[in-house]
Amino acid sequence: MNIRPAVEEDRGAIWNIFHEVVAAGDTYAFDPQMSREDALGYWFRDDTHTYVAERDKTIAGTFILRANQGGAGSHVANAAFMVPAQARGRGIGRAMGEHCLSEARRLGFRAMQFNLVVSTNESEIHLWKQLGFMIAGTLSGAFRHPEKGYVDVYTMFRSLL
Amino acid sequence: MNIRPAVEEDRGAIWNIFHEVVAAGDTYAFDPQMSREDALGYWFRDDTHTYVAERDKTIAGTFILRANQGGAGSHVANAAFMVPAQARGRGIGRAMGEHCLSEARRLGFRAMQFNLVVSTNESEIHLWKQLGFMIAGTLSGAFRHPEKGYVDVYTMFRSLL
Repeated sequence: MNIRPAVEEDRGAIWNIFHEVVAAGDTYAFDPQMSREDALGYWFRDDTHTYVAERDKTIAGTFILRANQGGAGSHVANAAFMVPAQARGRGIGRAMGEHCLSEARRLGFRAMQFNLVVSTNESEIHLWKQLGFMIAGTLSGAFRHPEKGYVDVYTMFRSLL
Repeated sequence: MNIRPAVEEDRGAIWNIFHEVVAAGDTYAFDPQMSREDALGYWFRDDTHTYVAERDKTIAGTFILRANQGGAGSHVANAAFMVPAQARGRGIGRAMGEHCLSEARRLGFRAMQFNLVVSTNESEIHLWKQLGFMIAGTLSGAFRHPEKGYVDVYTMFRSLL
């Protein structure tokens, strides 16, 4: 697997992944009907580092890395990861997570924070714990799950020092 | 005191307050050098309800109210409050906080979340606790305070049901 910065030619593959993940509605707080233009605008925002994981010349995942806040909060990174359903269970998320932590350190961030980890997403929470994150906060009922109704959201955090 | 939606003519007064609060650098994670255009663009964003507190025909405070996340997280409100130094200690923050909770309920939000409460801001934390918020999470060293160095950030949360 090759993890590298995304280029213009990856936009189609990224949109396919983004749309599939967001339409499912069980992990991200985006409008499931979000347009291609808005989605790619968000994923390739000026302040954002965008990456893809490539396997057998296919884009098997994508993630973004940026400052979670401006000014006096800009030393804390934020990141978001997407793997399409048919590519899951093969370590792509873990490889992207490890690469992301390494990139965040290289860019000088002192910590990494996830603002919205849906509490029902057990495999994701398990992975982040294995990569050194802890649950730093619980937001009661802050996510409306398509099958499970209002479920808790976790904030997850780890130092990079 | 009269709390009302902000209008075009309030922009100058709001910018003065915003600039003073943000330049101090001890409560908000904005660039202290943020331009007037960027500041007012943020405070009057399309998805944002903007209010002012008026006393003796002077704008003595301002706050914003909006969804903290999109899609499946859009039932949780977010808000931000600013009172200039010379107007503090007179209950303006509390009056705005109460008005904000009332407006959030009227708009149908189910909860309210503050993403970044600087742990050294004791009067603010005290006020939010009195208004029913709890500390839902602690982000270690997530704010670089101009005098105190890296200090913790709290996420604060309350149900509106």
